[in-house]
Amino acid sequence: MSERIRNSFKIINENDTTEIRRLCGSVHSADIARKLSELKVSDVREVIIKINPHKAAHIFQYFSDSLQSKLARLLSIEELAAILGYMATDEQADVLKKLDKHKQNDVLQLMPEKNSKQASALAAYPEGTAGSVMTKSFITLPLTATVAEAKKKVKEFEDPRNLHYIFVTDNLERVCGTLRMFSLIDMDGTIPVSEIADTEIFSVRPFDDQEKAARKLEHYDLLAIAVVDDGGKMLGLITYDDAFEVIIKEQTEDMQKLMAISAGDADNGESYLNISSWQHFKKRILWIVGLAILGLGSGYVLHTYEDVLDALVILAIYMPMLADTGGNTGSQSATLVIRALALGELKARDIFRVIFKEVKISVMISVVLMVLAYAKIAILSGGTTMPDGFSLSQIALAISIALGVQVVSATLIGAVLPIGVSSLKLDPAVIAAPAITSIVDITGLLIYFYTVTTMLGIH
Amino acid sequence: MSERIRNSFKIINENDTTEIRRLCGSVHSADIARKLSELKVSDVREVIIKINPHKAAHIFQYFSDSLQSKLARLLSIEELAAILGYMATDEQADVLKKLDKHKQNDVLQLMPEKNSKQASALAAYPEGTAGSVMTKSFITLPLTATVAEAKKKVKEFEDPRNLHYIFVTDNLERVCGTLRMFSLIDMDGTIPVSEIADTEIFSVRPFDDQEKAARKLEHYDLLAIAVVDDGGKMLGLITYDDAFEVIIKEQTEDMQKLMAISAGDADNGESYLNISSWQHFKKRILWIVGLAILGLGSGYVLHTYEDVLDALVILAIYMPMLADTGGNTGSQSATLVIRALALGELKARDIFRVIFKEVKISVMISVVLMVLAYAKIAILSGGTTMPDGFSLSQIALAISIALGVQVVSATLIGAVLPIGVSSLKLDPAVIAAPAITSIVDITGLLIYFYTVTTMLGIH
Repeated sequence: MSERIRNSFKIINENDTTEIRRLCGSVHSADIARKLSELKVSDVREVIIKINPHKAAHIFQYFSDSLQSKLARLLSIEELAAILGYMATDEQADVLKKLDKHKQNDVLQLMPEKNSKQASALAAYPEGTAGSVMTKSFITLPLTATVAEAKKKVKEFEDPRNLHYIFVTDNLERVCGTLRMFSLIDMDGTIPVSEIADTEIFSVRPFDDQEKAARKLEHYDLLAIAVVDDGGKMLGLITYDDAFEVIIKEQTEDMQKLMAISAGDADNGESYLNISSWQHFKKRILWIVGLAILGLGSGYVLHTYEDVLDALVILAIYMPMLADTGGNTGSQSATLVIRALALGELKARDIFRVIFKEVKISVMISVVLMVLAYAKIAILSGGTTMPDGFSLSQIALAISIALGVQVVSATLIGAVLPIGVSSLKLDPAVIAAPAITSIVDITGLLIYFYTVTTMLGIH
Repeated sequence: MSERIRNSFKIINENDTTEIRRLCGSVHSADIARKLSELKVSDVREVIIKINPHKAAHIFQYFSDSLQSKLARLLSIEELAAILGYMATDEQADVLKKLDKHKQNDVLQLMPEKNSKQASALAAYPEGTAGSVMTKSFITLPLTATVAEAKKKVKEFEDPRNLHYIFVTDNLERVCGTLRMFSLIDMDGTIPVSEIADTEIFSVRPFDDQEKAARKLEHYDLLAIAVVDDGGKMLGLITYDDAFEVIIKEQTEDMQKLMAISAGDADNGESYLNISSWQHFKKRILWIVGLAILGLGSGYVLHTYEDVLDALVILAIYMPMLADTGGNTGSQSATLVIRALALGELKARDIFRVIFKEVKISVMISVVLMVLAYAKIAILSGGTTMPDGFSLSQIALAISIALGVQVVSATLIGAVLPIGVSSLKLDPAVIAAPAITSIVDITGLLIYFYTVTTMLGIH
């Protein structure tokens, strides 16, 4: 096998002996997958079909979604069925989903019936649900079973390394407890499993959000969480490593949403360099155009106050300071609130506590920035002659006060908008920080011109 | 015990019977901890000292760092020692770290010697290292040991629910393999463990970054990863649930850093509402002031071009569009690159591939935005009379071209800066998106005024 990998890698780089040597030892499939991902898909296929299907199946699961798609389309139905035969049902379903209906059916027909039924059932759960990440490889035992039966089941289980619990069911087939491997060691075979099972049981439903399932597993420090139907009957389970993957993927998505980047399905688990420029463009352009349209608002406000700017050009010079500061303080509070909502630390009903807190914080920040702004104007514009009737200190004071009001209002807008969105049962992360920046740009300009014209008596 | 919890909760809310009922059943410690966290610290103490120390220890570990600190200071040394006695060594160390040296010593003296030695050794590892999150509760066996000996060790182990592997060591005490629980079931006692152990072994060093350790565990789908000294001797292990916690905490930090919020040690694992306003202020003000100072740069540029603005006020109106768009495109590319660096998808040596990719993407975005900008200027300023010698279409074209250049340069700055920082072995997340926004504000204004004055022939 390692001989074959070596040969295949020679195609790519005849001289890279260290690389090849590294790959030949008892290298973990995750690392082989990472290395293979750097090759052309056709070369990856060459390697994959030459190694034994068991190892190939293991490597396959570490490929990104898009590489899995491409490979699945490139492999013949016989090759694919052979590799799928060594995968857990959730992985089989993941791969099958990537094929067109026609090829999917052909592959399913080459698989053992029980297996193909399970895999096509799993493939039916929509992306993002608990059902789509669960596996069908699990053991259940009735409460009345004995330790000897449990041991027998373990010995017969196809993938014991991923066997974390045995699930115990009551007379209505509802999951009611778990059994861990250590508790079977040297335990007398005649003891009923009901005596040594943990009765604490945590479960989710197949159409629950996958992130909810992952967070529940994490919250209770579980190795696996049961997915059950409405009657409490076990449908599958999600293991800690799949939950890990879900949380990291969701995290990336949340961060991208926050920064006005559309997640899109196409780059599921795909790395930065592997996503095409066109795909990148599509991820970014939507928000950028949306923000440009939102920007019409501030353009319109500025247009309204064109005469004021004409009369007092110094106001134009300090406009960016106001806009930037508003954007910065607003996106700070938005980030903290969005993350707290995602981690379940905040609920919509906490809105008044959040407002109270953010008013206190923003007033503190505002005082510091007003002093800085006054000093900044005195330094930068100290040598400029002001238009008749205005003194520098008058103008500096007006701008500083406008800035203070802007900081408080921007901070509050940043904190309140995501809570408002989440109370509408929407994902608070749809409020991107740049959107907050654009919104507080508009409110900021209104505050700026209103304060300055009022204080300086311009009309 | 549940009677006592019920009584303690009555102090808080006499009528909340559903709440109390929920707490009295076989409630998971994580949930009891969450509920207790809503009470005053003195009330939490009342509850904690009344329940049995074993359960108390379990609940304690789910409290936030700051609540643990406050409680640890409030409990007497005897109470604390009793609870610590039921904790794993890494949790003991976490609590001990929060006490002053004097109380720490007093508590250690009440603990069994072996235990107190281990805990104080762990407490010595700095926050953020693998050593600081590892536990000393593990089993090692020499390669020459038998299955019977392994079984005996498992039976004697104090915390078998958290026993995922037995670590096998060679004649130099170096970790060289692992044994899983399932493989001991019904296995003949005379077989040497060397025959059934996995020889694939993954480890980290105690002073490695805790995030590195967590990511390695995740990458290889491990249940626990060994922490070894320079000679390969086992010092401790990090379990999957601790790795989970590390990754979630680091992700929150990365997100906050990206949005120009200092992480700070004080809010380790602390929720939004539990962090005081003063603490929030401190987390945010540093960057806000830094950004205000950075803003001096754009103020200075604007000041230089004051005469141009005076002559052509329409330029002031479209300045925010340029600044916002630059900020948005720059922070998009920065976010994607920073996340890719954090996940190990990108290395500093990929810089030219990133530049090549970002040029392609930004040119596409730029073309779309130039068209939009031209249309926007035509619509908003269509009715305005232009100063002598300038036509609207001339001005609109100049502004659009400046915007196009700004988009490409901002996108590149956003992508390249984090890679530059990471090649200096610094955390790329120190480049916050708002800092990128401020930087591209300055470069954007320079591009704007240079392009417009050159194209329109203003001096």
